[in-house]
Amino acid sequence: MPSEFELIARHFTRGTSHTLLGVGDDGALIAPTPGCELVISTDMLVEGTHFLPDTDAADLGWKALAVNVSDIAAMGARPRWATLAVALPDADEAWIAAFARGVFACAGEFGIDLIGGDTTRGPRNFCVTIFGEVESGCALRRSGARAGDEIWVSGRPGRAAMGLAHLQGRIRLDEPELSDCIAALQRPQPRVALGLALQGLATAAIDVSDGLLADLGHILEASGIAAQLKIAVPPAPTFARDAWLAGGDDYELVFTARATRHADIAALSQALDLALTCVGRIEDGPAGRIDLRDAEGTPMAAPRRGYDHFMSLPEAGTVSPADMSLPPEAGTASPDA
Amino acid sequence: MPSEFELIARHFTRGTSHTLLGVGDDGALIAPTPGCELVISTDMLVEGTHFLPDTDAADLGWKALAVNVSDIAAMGARPRWATLAVALPDADEAWIAAFARGVFACAGEFGIDLIGGDTTRGPRNFCVTIFGEVESGCALRRSGARAGDEIWVSGRPGRAAMGLAHLQGRIRLDEPELSDCIAALQRPQPRVALGLALQGLATAAIDVSDGLLADLGHILEASGIAAQLKIAVPPAPTFARDAWLAGGDDYELVFTARATRHADIAALSQALDLALTCVGRIEDGPAGRIDLRDAEGTPMAAPRRGYDHFMSLPEAGTVSPADMSLPPEAGTASPDA
Repeated sequence: MPSEFELIARHFTRGTSHTLLGVGDDGALIAPTPGCELVISTDMLVEGTHFLPDTDAADLGWKALAVNVSDIAAMGARPRWATLAVALPDADEAWIAAFARGVFACAGEFGIDLIGGDTTRGPRNFCVTIFGEVESGCALRRSGARAGDEIWVSGRPGRAAMGLAHLQGRIRLDEPELSDCIAALQRPQPRVALGLALQGLATAAIDVSDGLLADLGHILEASGIAAQLKIAVPPAPTFARDAWLAGGDDYELVFTARATRHADIAALSQALDLALTCVGRIEDGPAGRIDLRDAEGTPMAAPRRGYDHFMSLPEAGTVSPADMSLPPEAGTASPDA
Repeated sequence: MPSEFELIARHFTRGTSHTLLGVGDDGALIAPTPGCELVISTDMLVEGTHFLPDTDAADLGWKALAVNVSDIAAMGARPRWATLAVALPDADEAWIAAFARGVFACAGEFGIDLIGGDTTRGPRNFCVTIFGEVESGCALRRSGARAGDEIWVSGRPGRAAMGLAHLQGRIRLDEPELSDCIAALQRPQPRVALGLALQGLATAAIDVSDGLLADLGHILEASGIAAQLKIAVPPAPTFARDAWLAGGDDYELVFTARATRHADIAALSQALDLALTCVGRIEDGPAGRIDLRDAEGTPMAAPRRGYDHFMSLPEAGTVSPADMSLPPEAGTASPDA
C-alpha cells in the first residue's frame, strides 16, 4: 500500500502557475497581488451528509473544489489558490487518482493553483480552503442591499435538489431535464464570470448553497432589511417549486442591484449567455422577512427554509431530502416541469 | 438542538484585530501586508487517528490550531489568520464551547484572527488552514541545507510520544516528567519566536510532527544531501531513546545552520530561554541518508522512521503507538529518564 507521502506526490502534486512554493514544505508561499485583498473561504464535505457514498470520485473531486470556487464568485473575486485536506478510510489508489483528476479539472477550469494539503486516514471527508483576489474595496458583501433594490438570481436554482431526488427514487425525471439536473448536482458550475462582472453593479450577493429562500435570508439579515419575492413557477406546492425555493447545492448567485441598473443586468445576461432573472424586490421591513407571492401577487406559504447539517438529517449516514418538507401529496409526484 | 448557524455565532465568532471582514459572509476579507509573502498550511485532525476519543475538548481545540501554528513557525513566519472547519457527530454544546475556548486560547496566544469556518455533521474531524506572513524572500525552506551545516533541535522531542504511551499504559512516567510529557502531548507550544529569530540564521527548517528522523529526512531529501546524527541519550534501545528519534507530535523545530553561526545560536537559546541542541552535521552523500551514531561515534541502527497515517495504524479507530517499533524487551520497560 502506498504511503501518505507517495500518494501526495503521485496524485496531488502538479505544477503551479502563480505560486512561489507549492506542495512539499511546511507551508506554501504565495505573493499576493499588490492593491488586492484576499478572499478566503473553507468548506468541509462529509460522506453521508454532503454526498452519497457511491458518488463518482471524479465528480466528487470537481465538486469539493467547485463549491469553494462558488464562495469566491459570490464575493466578486477571482479564484487563485486552494488547499485540500482529505481523510480516507483506505488508500484505494484508483479512487484517489480519479478524485484528483476531478479536483484538477476544476482547478484548471478556474485558473487555481493547488498549493498544499493533507492526507490522512479516517471516515471520508474533504476540506478545501480557497483564496481569491479582488481589487481593494471592490468585494461583494451580503450587507449592501437597500430598499428598492431588485433581487436577481442566475440560472435555475433547484436543479441539484431535483437531481438528488431522482437518484433517491423520490421523483422521476426524463431527458433532457434528467441530465441537466444530474450535472447541476454533480458538476456544479460556479458563476465566477458573473461575480466578477457584478463588481460595481450588485449591491449584495451570495451563492445558493442552502436554498434560495435561506440564502436570500442571509442577505436580508446582513443588510437589516426585508424583501418581497414573486415566484414565476406555478403556485401549487410541487417538488419543482419547492426545489426552486428551498433546494440547496446549486451554486447559482442571488444578488441585489439598484432598479436603475435593470437594463445593465439584462445586457450582462446576454453577454454571459446566462439566464439572470429578476425575482423580487427589497423592501423596508423586519430584517430577514420574506413576503412570498405567486405570479398574481397572492401571498403564499414558504416551504421550510434551507439546509442545516445539525437539524435536517433524519439519521446519520443518509442524505436528507434536501430539507424540503414537502406536503405528503407532493412527495411522490412527478416534477411539473 | 441549536442550528449550525447558531453554533457558529455563539462559539466561533469573536472580534478580529487585523481583518477587514471576518466570519459571516461567503468569504473573509484580509489585506495582506505590503512587502510580505503569505505562508499557508492546512492540517486535518481525525478522531482515532490523531487523538484519543476522550481527549479534553479544550486541549483538542488548542492542539488543532497549535499544530498549524507550528508549520508557520517552521517557515520563519508570523501567524496571522486561520480558518476552522469542524465535523461533529452531534451538537453537544458544552463540548463545542470547551473546544472553542481551546481554539481561541491558542489564537490569542499567537495573535491569530479566526476569520472563517464551517460546521457540519459527521465523524469528528477538524481541519485548520492557517496564514502567516513573512518578509518577501525570508521564509525558511527545507531545501537550503548544505554540507558542513550543523543540525539543531529545539526543546526535547519525544515527550509527546512518551505522554501518549503513558496514557495508553505502555510505559509509566512519574512526576515531574509525567506532567511535562502530557503537556507536550496535549498543549504543544509552537516555536514561533524561534522561527522568526532563525530568519537569516538557519539554512533550512522543519517542525517535528512525524519524528526527528523522519522530519530531518525531509530536509535532507529537499536539500539533496545526507547527515550524521549523534545522539546523546543512551544507545540502548529504550523507549525514551526511540521516542527522541522517532516520536512525532512534538512540534519542536529541527533546523540547520552554518557551523560559523554556532555561537549565535547558543546566544539565541539564552535569549529565548529555550534549549537548542546541536545534534549532528550535514554531510555529502545520498539524499536523505542518515548515519546514526551514539555519543562515542559507534554506528547504530535506527528505529522505524516516522508516522504514516496509511501505514502505521494497527486498526481503524485506535491510536497507533506512535509508530515506534520497539523491540520486544523494551515494550514494557520503564523509561530510562
